[in-house]
Amino acid sequence: MKRTMQVSAVAVAAFFAGALATTVTSGQTDKWYPARLGAADQRGAANRLTLAKVLDAKAMITAGKVYQLGRVYEAGMPLYGTRHYSLKIPYAFQMPGKNQANYHDDIISGELTQIGTQFDGLGHLGIGELFYNGNKKSDFVTPDGFKKLGIENVGAIVTRGVLIDVAKYKGVPRLQSPYAITVADLTGALQREKMEIKSGDVVLVHTGWGSLWMKDNATFNASSPGISIAAAEWLVSKEVVVVGSDNWGVEAFPNPDPNLTAPVHQLFLAKNGIYLLENLMTEELAKDQTYEFAFVFAPLRLKGATGSPGNPIAIR
Amino acid sequence: MKRTMQVSAVAVAAFFAGALATTVTSGQTDKWYPARLGAADQRGAANRLTLAKVLDAKAMITAGKVYQLGRVYEAGMPLYGTRHYSLKIPYAFQMPGKNQANYHDDIISGELTQIGTQFDGLGHLGIGELFYNGNKKSDFVTPDGFKKLGIENVGAIVTRGVLIDVAKYKGVPRLQSPYAITVADLTGALQREKMEIKSGDVVLVHTGWGSLWMKDNATFNASSPGISIAAAEWLVSKEVVVVGSDNWGVEAFPNPDPNLTAPVHQLFLAKNGIYLLENLMTEELAKDQTYEFAFVFAPLRLKGATGSPGNPIAIR
Amino acid sequence: MKRTMQVSAVAVAAFFAGALATTVTSGQTDKWYPARLGAADQRGAANRLTLAKVLDAKAMITAGKVYQLGRVYEAGMPLYGTRHYSLKIPYAFQMPGKNQANYHDDIISGELTQIGTQFDGLGHLGIGELFYNGNKKSDFVTPDGFKKLGIENVGAIVTRGVLIDVAKYKGVPRLQSPYAITVADLTGALQREKMEIKSGDVVLVHTGWGSLWMKDNATFNASSPGISIAAAEWLVSKEVVVVGSDNWGVEAFPNPDPNLTAPVHQLFLAKNGIYLLENLMTEELAKDQTYEFAFVFAPLRLKGATGSPGNPIAIR
Amino acid sequence: MKRTMQVSAVAVAAFFAGALATTVTSGQTDKWYPARLGAADQRGAANRLTLAKVLDAKAMITAGKVYQLGRVYEAGMPLYGTRHYSLKIPYAFQMPGKNQANYHDDIISGELTQIGTQFDGLGHLGIGELFYNGNKKSDFVTPDGFKKLGIENVGAIVTRGVLIDVAKYKGVPRLQSPYAITVADLTGALQREKMEIKSGDVVLVHTGWGSLWMKDNATFNASSPGISIAAAEWLVSKEVVVVGSDNWGVEAFPNPDPNLTAPVHQLFLAKNGIYLLENLMTEELAKDQTYEFAFVFAPLRLKGATGSPGNPIAIR
Repeated sequence: MKRTMQVSAVAVAAFFAGALATTVTSGQTDKWYPARLGAADQRGAANRLTLAKVLDAKAMITAGKVYQLGRVYEAGMPLYGTRHYSLKIPYAFQMPGKNQANYHDDIISGELTQIGTQFDGLGHLGIGELFYNGNKKSDFVTPDGFKKLGIENVGAIVTRGVLIDVAKYKGVPRLQSPYAITVADLTGALQREKMEIKSGDVVLVHTGWGSLWMKDNATFNASSPGISIAAAEWLVSKEVVVVGSDNWGVEAFPNPDPNLTAPVHQLFLAKNGIYLLENLMTEELAKDQTYEFAFVFAPLRLKGATGSPGNPIAIR
Repeated sequence: MKRTMQVSAVAVAAFFAGALATTVTSGQTDKWYPARLGAADQRGAANRLTLAKVLDAKAMITAGKVYQLGRVYEAGMPLYGTRHYSLKIPYAFQMPGKNQANYHDDIISGELTQIGTQFDGLGHLGIGELFYNGNKKSDFVTPDGFKKLGIENVGAIVTRGVLIDVAKYKGVPRLQSPYAITVADLTGALQREKMEIKSGDVVLVHTGWGSLWMKDNATFNASSPGISIAAAEWLVSKEVVVVGSDNWGVEAFPNPDPNLTAPVHQLFLAKNGIYLLENLMTEELAKDQTYEFAFVFAPLRLKGATGSPGNPIAIR
Repeated sequence: MKRTMQVSAVAVAAFFAGALATTVTSGQTDKWYPARLGAADQRGAANRLTLAKVLDAKAMITAGKVYQLGRVYEAGMPLYGTRHYSLKIPYAFQMPGKNQANYHDDIISGELTQIGTQFDGLGHLGIGELFYNGNKKSDFVTPDGFKKLGIENVGAIVTRGVLIDVAKYKGVPRLQSPYAITVADLTGALQREKMEIKSGDVVLVHTGWGSLWMKDNATFNASSPGISIAAAEWLVSKEVVVVGSDNWGVEAFPNPDPNLTAPVHQLFLAKNGIYLLENLMTEELAKDQTYEFAFVFAPLRLKGATGSPGNPIAIR
Repeated sequence: MKRTMQVSAVAVAAFFAGALATTVTSGQTDKWYPARLGAADQRGAANRLTLAKVLDAKAMITAGKVYQLGRVYEAGMPLYGTRHYSLKIPYAFQMPGKNQANYHDDIISGELTQIGTQFDGLGHLGIGELFYNGNKKSDFVTPDGFKKLGIENVGAIVTRGVLIDVAKYKGVPRLQSPYAITVADLTGALQREKMEIKSGDVVLVHTGWGSLWMKDNATFNASSPGISIAAAEWLVSKEVVVVGSDNWGVEAFPNPDPNLTAPVHQLFLAKNGIYLLENLMTEELAKDQTYEFAFVFAPLRLKGATGSPGNPIAIR
C-alpha cells in the first residue's frame, strides 16, 4: 500500500513549516503535542516523503552504484543490554515426489527490530508515559504489539540522502568518545562537502565509530560519540525525516549532562516524529566522498513493532 | 559493501548468454553445475545486477510513486507447514536520568526468512543433497548457518521490474487453483501489456491469489496457481534475476505432475541461481496497470541464512 | 538450595492457623496484605512445606507406582490466547576427534511457563496493580524478569496429594461446561472417597475436561468447568499449598458472575499465596481410584519467571 | 501415563544382567546394537526403573529433607557453544471484568533442553550416523523433533540415588582440570562413604567444579574434570540409570586421548542407553555428607526433544 500519496507535497511542506525544534532539557513542560498533522497522526516526519522527494532521489542517481548500508547480522555482533540474536538451521524438510525437493528454514529469535542495523519507530522511546503525539503507554501498548505507532505505519522511504562526514571534517578516522557533535561540526562538515540539507531529506552522520564493529565490540558498546542536543535541534529545524549514524545510538552516549540519557531520542522520536537509524555501515560512502545520493529503505511491516531491522541503500 | 561492481556488465551479459534452461524432469542427470560464473560463485543471477540495470531502473521513475510490495507480518497470517511467528512487547526498559527516557523492544521468534513476504536464497531448496552450484549439504550447512550460499551474499537488487498480470490476461480477478501458468499465458499477457522482459530484470507474476490473504487463509494455503515448469524455463531463458508472485510458492502447487513437488524451485534456485519472492502484494501495481517500474529490494544481511523477510518496493 | 528448612513446622503451622480466606467479590477493599509471614515473604503457601509434610508424603508410598501428571508438549496442543510453542531440531553439531561424536540440540521458543501443564507462580496474576503480598507491578516487574515473586523462590514441593474426583461424584465422565464446582461437590466427593484434606496438602480436582485434550481442542479451550469462588475459599480454609486440575484454568471459565474473570486466580495467587497447576493429566489417578499419594514437583528455577512448565508426579 | 510397569522388575533385571560395557575406543566395530530389550526399545536404562526401585527410594527418606539439585536458569549463566537463553516479561494482559484481573507471561527462547541443569536423552549424541539402538539419523530425526528416542519416552525417575564425592576423597574442594576420574577414584570414594551402587540407581559425581558456576564462568566452560572412559565402563557394569555431575559434561573435557571427544557420552547414551545429568548443584548433598537418598526427576515431556531442563531433587 502506498502511503505518501494521501497528502499533497505542498500541503505537507506548508504544514511542517516553522520551527518544530523544542528543548528537551527544560523540564518537559513545553507543549509538544498534539502533532502538527493532528492528534491522529502516526507517521510523524514520514509525512514529508512526497512525490517530489522521490524525484529528488532519482536525480541523485548518475552512476548506478549501489551501497548497502546495513551490517551483517551474526552471532557475536555488538548488542545493547540484554538483547540477543539467534539463528539456527533445522534439519532439511523433505517434500514428497520423485524430484527429491527438500528445503531449509532458519529459526530466528531475538529483539530483531533493535539489534544490528536498526530503524527506530515512534513507539520505541518516550518521555515517561508519553510517546509521539502525546500517546500514553496505556493507550497504545499491548503485549501483542502496539495498537498505534507501529512500524507498519511508516511506509517506504525514498528520498534524497546526505552524508555528513564529521570524522573527515575533524581530521580523524574515528571521533573520540565521549564526544557530542556540535552544530558547528555539522555546518562545518557540510560546508567542506559543499552540501546542504533540504526538507524531507535523510541525514547520515559518519563518525568512524563503526570501524570498531566486530573488531572491538567492548569499546564499541561502552560509549559512543554522537550528536548533541543542539545539533539535533538544528536537524529538526532542517525538517529531516531520518537521522542515521554508524554507531549504536546516533546521539552522544553518555550525554555531557550526567542527568540526561537519550535526550536526542526523545527530541526526535517523541517530540518531532523523526526516525533514527543505528549501526549503519557508512564507510564506503565516506571513502568515496559520496555526500548526496538516493536513499531507499522500506521497513519490514511488522505489525505493532517498535522498529525494523534493515539493509538501507544509497544509490548514486 | 557494494557487490555489483566486481564484474563488468558486458562480461556478465556475455557469460550468461545462451540457454541456461535445463529440464528438471529428466532424472536430474543433466550437468547443471558448476555454475557458469565458476564453482566458487555464490550469487547466481544476482551477478546480472550491473550498473546499467540500476540506470534502467532509474529510467522507470517518472511520477515518484512508490508501491510497497511487502505484506504486513502479523499474528494469524497464513503460514506454511509448522512455521510460526511471534512478536511480543516486553515491559519498557527504564533508563537512568531526570529526563525519564524509557524504551520498548520487540521480542520476535519464528522462521523469519520463510514466512509472509519472503525472499528465497540459493541454499533454501535443493535436489537431494545438491544445491546451487552443486554444493552438497555436508559442504555448506551447519546448525549455526550456511558456510556458503547465505543470503548475505546477494546484495541489493536495484533493477527494472516487470509485472505480468496473468489474471487480467485471463479475464478473472483471481486465477483458479490448481492451475499451472503456461508460456502462452506469459507471452500473451506481456503482449497485452506491450511489455517485454530484458536480461537482469525482476519479474512479478500477478495471479490474484493474494486477494485471499487474511481473508480466507485456509483456501490460500491449500493450493496455489503458479507458473509451470515450461513457463519457468522460458523465464530462465530471459535471464531474469528474481521471479516473484502474490502467492506462497510462485509455481503451481500441486504440480500437474503428481510425482513432482516444487520443481520450479529446483530449476530456479539450484540449477540457475534465480531467486524467488513469495507472498508479494501486487494488487496496486495491477490496479494501476503499472507494468514496468524500478524494483528495489535489499535482503537483510542475515549471515548464513536461507532467505530474508522483506518489503520490496516498486517505483514509477 | 533447600528452602523448606528455614521455618520450623510448628511455627509455620501456628502462623497460618486461622482463616486466610477472603472474599474477592467485595470490591477488593478487604485488607489482604501484607502476608501473614511478613511483607518480605515471596513464597506464600510454599512455607507450609515442612519436614513433616515430606514424611506424610513418604507414608503414601506403598506400591511403588508412579503417575506422570504432566502432558506432552507438542505442536497442535491447546494454547491460551496468543501464546505459542515451537521446537525444532537444528542440524547436528560435529565434534572434533576420530570417534565421530556429534549431537543434536532443540531450539525452543514460546511462553514456556504458561502453556501445556503449567504451574502459576505468585507474580503471574494480580488485582490491578497489586500482586501477592501487595507487591505493585512497578516494584517487581522488569522486562528481564521479576525482581520478586519469581518462580525460583518456590522450591521443591514434596507433600501429600489428594485427588478429588468431582466427575465421578457427579456420575459423569466429564463435567458439563460452564459449571462452577460447589463446596458441596468437593465435600461430597471427598466423603465418597473417604478422604480429607490436611494443611500443607496439594489438591487436584478431576473434572474429566482433560479428556478433550488433543481430541477436541476447540471445545477444550472455549470454556471450562472448574471450582467456584466459594469452593476456592473452602480450599483456602483447608490451608492447601497447590490446587491443580485437568483443565486450563482450575476455576470455572466463564465465571457465573459475568462481571468477574479469574477471581479464583486472584484469591489463590494474590491474596493467599496458593499456587495453581493447570492442564494436569489426572485420568490414571482417577481410573485407579488413587485418591491420596505422594505429590512431587520441583518447578524449573527460571529466575524471575511467572511460572514453570512441569511434569509433576504422584507416587503411591 | 505410567511407564515403569510394562516390564516386570525380575524380567528387566535378568535382561540387563551381564556386561553391557563396551569399548568405545576400538574403532566402533563392536556390535553394540540392537539393544538387549529389543530393536524397538526407546527407553534404555530407564527400563530398570521398577516398582522395587521406587520402594528403595522410599526407604532413603528418613528426615524429610529435600535438596534441589537444579541450578537457576538466568541471563549470564555459562552456556556451551552458541546456545542461548532469553526470558522476557511482556506487558501484562488485561482481562475483562470488574475485578481487574491481569496477568504476566514469560516469553522464552533458547536451547532449553541443553542449557543449565540438563538431562540428555538418547537422541542427543551419537556415533556418526548412529544413535541408541542403532537408530540412524535419517530414521528418526526430523526438523520438527525426533520420531523416536524423544525425551517423552523416558518417564519419571524415582529411584535410589548415590552421591560419589570424589573431591572429598581426593582431599580438595574442587578437582583440578583437566582430570579424568579413575575407577579407583570412584571405588575409593565409595569405600570412604561406606556406599555401594546397585542396579537401577542414579549416580551423582561431585567434583567441586560447580563452585565456579556464575563465579568464574570462563574457567568453568574452558574445560572440566570428569569421569574417564574406564570409570564410565565401570558404572555401566553397575547397571545405573543416570549419571550426573556438577559440571557441564560429566566426563573429562578434554579427554586425555586427544583423538577423542565425548566418548563417555557415546558409551552411555548410544551404546548403553544410560542418561546424563549435567550442571547439577550437588554442593549441599556433599556438605551434609548425604551419600544416599531418594532421587526424583521427571523430564518435561517435550515431544521429540533431545533432552529436558530440570530441577531434580534428592530426599533423605
